[in-house]
Amino acid sequence: MAFAFTKKKSSAECHARTGILKTPHGDIPTPVFMPVGTKATVKTLSPEEAYETSEGLILGNTYHLWLEPGEGIIRAHGGLGRFMNWPHALLTDSGGYQVFSLSGQRKITDDGVHFRHHKSGERLFLSPEKSIAIQEALGADIIMCLDECPPFDASRDYMEESVERTLRWAKRSKAAHERKDQALFGIIQGGGHRDLRAASLEGLQAIGFPGYAVGGLSVGETQEEMLAVLDFLAPLLPEEKPRYLMGVGTPVYLLESIERGMDMFDCVHPTRLARHGGAYTKRGRINIKSAVHAESLDPLDECDCFVCQNYTRAYIRHLLKSRETFGQRLVSYHNLHFLKTLLARARQAIADDRYLSFKTVFLQDYRTGGR
Amino acid sequence: MAFAFTKKKSSAECHARTGILKTPHGDIPTPVFMPVGTKATVKTLSPEEAYETSEGLILGNTYHLWLEPGEGIIRAHGGLGRFMNWPHALLTDSGGYQVFSLSGQRKITDDGVHFRHHKSGERLFLSPEKSIAIQEALGADIIMCLDECPPFDASRDYMEESVERTLRWAKRSKAAHERKDQALFGIIQGGGHRDLRAASLEGLQAIGFPGYAVGGLSVGETQEEMLAVLDFLAPLLPEEKPRYLMGVGTPVYLLESIERGMDMFDCVHPTRLARHGGAYTKRGRINIKSAVHAESLDPLDECDCFVCQNYTRAYIRHLLKSRETFGQRLVSYHNLHFLKTLLARARQAIADDRYLSFKTVFLQDYRTGGR
Repeated sequence: MAFAFTKKKSSAECHARTGILKTPHGDIPTPVFMPVGTKATVKTLSPEEAYETSEGLILGNTYHLWLEPGEGIIRAHGGLGRFMNWPHALLTDSGGYQVFSLSGQRKITDDGVHFRHHKSGERLFLSPEKSIAIQEALGADIIMCLDECPPFDASRDYMEESVERTLRWAKRSKAAHERKDQALFGIIQGGGHRDLRAASLEGLQAIGFPGYAVGGLSVGETQEEMLAVLDFLAPLLPEEKPRYLMGVGTPVYLLESIERGMDMFDCVHPTRLARHGGAYTKRGRINIKSAVHAESLDPLDECDCFVCQNYTRAYIRHLLKSRETFGQRLVSYHNLHFLKTLLARARQAIADDRYLSFKTVFLQDYRTGGR
Repeated sequence: MAFAFTKKKSSAECHARTGILKTPHGDIPTPVFMPVGTKATVKTLSPEEAYETSEGLILGNTYHLWLEPGEGIIRAHGGLGRFMNWPHALLTDSGGYQVFSLSGQRKITDDGVHFRHHKSGERLFLSPEKSIAIQEALGADIIMCLDECPPFDASRDYMEESVERTLRWAKRSKAAHERKDQALFGIIQGGGHRDLRAASLEGLQAIGFPGYAVGGLSVGETQEEMLAVLDFLAPLLPEEKPRYLMGVGTPVYLLESIERGMDMFDCVHPTRLARHGGAYTKRGRINIKSAVHAESLDPLDECDCFVCQNYTRAYIRHLLKSRETFGQRLVSYHNLHFLKTLLARARQAIADDRYLSFKTVFLQDYRTGGR
């Protein structure tokens, strides 16, 4: 079964929309948040727990899986889904982002990127063709073109050169990609420059992809700068293709980005935050390790997830303070469930043409700790 | 509902026997292995996973829970079971073993033990009455008398004095214990000295307890020394009372001890081993982190647990090498499932009067990697 995107409803109030991603491993409602399973596991969770707290689509990181355990052994299992016992839908990134954010001594040429392993120092090379070959071995339903992700404040000259290279890489990625059961997405770059963002999108559309991602955001720019890029892009993006905003995943950013027409999101934030004791609640974030929760018999939040139905703040705090991994699991589960519920409510609000008031009310509670 | 033990079957071949422990939180078949939930969680596992891999009876450590989070907050939850979301049976130890093994600057008097917190250095005091008070607050179904656990090779004079003190403490423990829904067990000490072991047992029986534990073993003595103590005690122990061998939990020791009439066991070994990558298999222990498993598509063992049904050695190795807690969870689950299955087979073999051949065949495979 091939990949397809069906738009269901466009908001009458803003660029928000709902839709369905059809994948060989299930239909996914959009807007959707995808939990990150960097190293073939959503940290601290089982596949069953990741499924309960997602819409059945999670992300794997090509860079990490390429280096360890290597794509060969994953292919030998029949792909990443089989390897990690995840019979649902998967997306892999290109590895580019980690090459730029983690590795040392990068040298970018038109061929690809020469760099050093972030731990061993080993010399490595990643090209558009190599990234596609690895992602074909991993076998995710949705895969990404290798792109360069420069800092948001890179010089105009550099950004122009980089956007052109990313377009050439996108063309080579498409040419190299053979598996018909995978959808290959292009990535829009261009930092905060409107003309470069427009040129990047136009160039990708000329090549033609079943989905478009917005890259180069959530890399240290202000919220204002990020939303300005999305405001500019929203009316330019093709209506009939899914739009994936890479690296975004806090409640506030998700709601702002959905308003601006984004359909797909991923971020390590909810699970990383959880491992340090940070929990989302309707009244904003709390740190469960704080002494104020030491004697609390309340759940993390007013919430119907199994964590909030069965465990108190005092118990979860005790586990986190004692470095018991079950505590990290409980908070990770709750945070992902929180985002899943938030996006389900957002989809309903879009369907009912009351998205903006939904967002306003949620953010008022979330930011101020209550009305 | 009060505690009771019913003996079902005595082996015609050896001292092995089967029975049922009736507790206010469920009936437990014996011989039984009890996973250890030191700090109100069986490390890396959820209560559901601990239930699947146990017979519904796990152990909590009074020492750790007294110090963190404190018995007060646990009592405020309605006891340890409510605190950790474990609606099944619980046993707590007295805290004595950890005072002797973990803490610094111990001073033992007839009153109790003065010692220092193993991390903060804080001055603390544990007495028989204090241990009972904490264990009443924790609210387990089975609780233990505070005992002194001297090194196996302590001098004869010291051991004699210690056994007498432990008897005086046992009497005070029983006098202090008020909760009728808890069964208080006495602990037999005496090291490798037969007359002291016999005197210890006799003294405890004169006080009268619903169960007897064998303490002071699995503390560094040889297997021969340990089994000699059990061989000596087996015919002396009252038939109608359960016998709990403290701190024992490897497959070999479990089978040898069951042969010698022991009914209950606890040990951190299966879960601690697991967190370091050690897995029990029918052909002996393996270390899953070893490079020999890097490309293995086999399960940990020929086994019907969900880990072995769904995950390969290569995947589990990758998780352990990547320090992903889900890997520790998978191996912990498998190891406890292994012991649960082993003891279920032992009970059946006792019922069928073929325990000794069952043990011989199992150990042959386990020790030599196959017949």
